[in-house]
Amino acid sequence: MPTILVEVMPKAELLDPQGKAVSGALTRLGKSEFTDVRIGKRFELTVDGPITDAIRADVQHIADEILSNSVIEDVVAITYPEAE
Amino acid sequence: MPTILVEVMPKAELLDPQGKAVSGALTRLGKSEFTDVRIGKRFELTVDGPITDAIRADVQHIADEILSNSVIEDVVAITYPEAE
Repeated sequence: MPTILVEVMPKAELLDPQGKAVSGALTRLGKSEFTDVRIGKRFELTVDGPITDAIRADVQHIADEILSNSVIEDVVAITYPEAE
Repeated sequence: MPTILVEVMPKAELLDPQGKAVSGALTRLGKSEFTDVRIGKRFELTVDGPITDAIRADVQHIADEILSNSVIEDVVAITYPEAE
């Protein structure tokens, strides 16, 4: 069954404390070449049946309204790995 | 500065209750064509300087040991969007 990927990241102007914590841990481990880490989400939606234009419109809507909080997050990518 | 993407997903054999909750919400909203949702993480690592072979090895190690918990998660992709 086809899978759709939706990728969501915290907005660039926000701090992302979780990412800062990982970045600090890398620095303490001596990996100072990594200057910044940001942590977002990756959703895999499995669709029953072919990916139609209606489903693409639905996915855009779901990504904007349900999977992300537009106050603090951006939908950075919606990809259809198994679409031709 | 180059950015490296690391994508981590819960292992296929685990339940992923967060994804199940979203999947249930979509069904209640009438979007029953989406049969499953799984939620993972997307890390953006910013590197100071060019991406060398040493950095690639470091990233593989960091992805396996620090960014993911190999008991419950798989590193599904490490991509270098700005590498040629």
